[in-house]
Amino acid sequence: MIYPVFDAATIEQAATPRLVLDTVREALIAHSQGRTAVPPPLHLQFPDADGDCHVKAGWVTGAADFTVKIATGFYRNPAAGLPSNHGLICVISARTGQIRAILDDQGLLTAWRTAAAGALITHAMARQSATTLSVFGTGEQARLQVQWLARLRQISTVLVHGRSQDKAQALCEAFNTRGHHARAASAEEAACADMVITTTPATAPVLHAAHVRDGAHVTGIGTDMPHKNELPPALFARAALIATDDHGQCLDHGDFGHAVRAGSVTATSDTPAGLLLDTPVERPNGAITVADLTGVGAVDAALASAVLRELAR
Amino acid sequence: MIYPVFDAATIEQAATPRLVLDTVREALIAHSQGRTAVPPPLHLQFPDADGDCHVKAGWVTGAADFTVKIATGFYRNPAAGLPSNHGLICVISARTGQIRAILDDQGLLTAWRTAAAGALITHAMARQSATTLSVFGTGEQARLQVQWLARLRQISTVLVHGRSQDKAQALCEAFNTRGHHARAASAEEAACADMVITTTPATAPVLHAAHVRDGAHVTGIGTDMPHKNELPPALFARAALIATDDHGQCLDHGDFGHAVRAGSVTATSDTPAGLLLDTPVERPNGAITVADLTGVGAVDAALASAVLRELAR
Repeated sequence: MIYPVFDAATIEQAATPRLVLDTVREALIAHSQGRTAVPPPLHLQFPDADGDCHVKAGWVTGAADFTVKIATGFYRNPAAGLPSNHGLICVISARTGQIRAILDDQGLLTAWRTAAAGALITHAMARQSATTLSVFGTGEQARLQVQWLARLRQISTVLVHGRSQDKAQALCEAFNTRGHHARAASAEEAACADMVITTTPATAPVLHAAHVRDGAHVTGIGTDMPHKNELPPALFARAALIATDDHGQCLDHGDFGHAVRAGSVTATSDTPAGLLLDTPVERPNGAITVADLTGVGAVDAALASAVLRELAR
Repeated sequence: MIYPVFDAATIEQAATPRLVLDTVREALIAHSQGRTAVPPPLHLQFPDADGDCHVKAGWVTGAADFTVKIATGFYRNPAAGLPSNHGLICVISARTGQIRAILDDQGLLTAWRTAAAGALITHAMARQSATTLSVFGTGEQARLQVQWLARLRQISTVLVHGRSQDKAQALCEAFNTRGHHARAASAEEAACADMVITTTPATAPVLHAAHVRDGAHVTGIGTDMPHKNELPPALFARAALIATDDHGQCLDHGDFGHAVRAGSVTATSDTPAGLLLDTPVERPNGAITVADLTGVGAVDAALASAVLRELAR
């Protein structure tokens, strides 16, 4: 009854871009069709250590496995030379309840499914002719969103906007060594790209709706708690099509919820992101489209199961 | 960042009766004093496989570690030669969020903390002169409750009442080989003992309140879901002292909640079990006392941490 524990390096080998993209796409489609079970997560807080623990579970209905993901964030760790985040994914048989494996992935699969979901939705919703991309933020997801979208379509120019000029410059250099044409940009200039992806922990909008061009697509992936907010309600008001990865979550703690509470759009004005992956999006080329992604537990489950299948080959 | 995984045999060695009793006692006292954090658990159901998964977390405030416990129950497993229950306990630092260890305990620590809590509370609430004990039920907890209470006080006679005569007889034989004087009994006779412990998954009361003698103590440990019920509301109405291990849980899904909803007692008529462990109970010898135990997540955390400390010595 003892199960294997796989480390991050082993998981990274098994989780090929093709596997991740296919699995995330299928799981988002399943979620949009109601073929998933995602119970409310469990939270514990440790105020004295500026830490928290989130436990999320998910299942694609009928799949052989489900997962329980434990993730901690202790934000004073870097001062002690430790990473802020830790956790594991426990893969469990949905037929017998036996634990099949533990993925000690150091947050890798969560980062990759977030990047893959952002890339898939941005690619599906942006105009075919869209080629310029801007990212707001200079962290891991800023890097990954560009990298994963570049797997799906040609990108002519990457604009990077960050609060820190140095970090924006460093990220541009990293992109340039990978063959992208990247440069740092002001918020106003970055908001004018064909495709805009926001990846920040901002608590107030990072761009002005008026700066976004007709025909552009904007994806927000950083807003994952009620007090966070990247995209202005006025942008949702301008959008011809709004996608959410999970209606309830986005209403509760996504940018979509801010727009609804501001009265800019109605609570039923969104479309499940997975539906847009299943059926090509028909969009007037002059319209603005917006996607609000908060992360779906059933996608974690599908990806962990798929990786475990690869590891068990 | 790789952590050890300890198996059940190793854990069993480390979890001595003294360690378990001391730790459970201290954790119940801490819980009664509000020095614990126990978030609402997370549930997933798998109706096609008659299975479920419960995830519980707990922390004794200020302790070095907290735990996340994953427990599955898949009730068709025995037909396939597998145990119904599986799971693990993840011990995590409350200072840095780093996973310290996984206890692959096969449910051992949950069984032992349940037995220790039942024994501690029964011993604290029963008359000093009480010597006869009856158990309702013939499963693992029936065996453990007798075994653990015998560590705390002399027991002259053990009466066993089960729906199956054969199982009751087999359990009596097991007790007799351990030096107890045990025999099978009717529900009416078993209800007349000085100390009564119910350990069944019953959905209707297993004894009549009128059969319980003045001066007796009754502990119910089997009721852990709203549809389950072992102790009749009329027994609570007769009780001079009612203890609950967690007020909210017992009201929501314990026998105490049934008694409150039946109008037999008020919702504020209970005393935290941990308080009775901290201060010796003053009881009129002629009074009936009742304890309703539903299992406290912070006790899991305290016990797992204590076992890990032993293992790390």
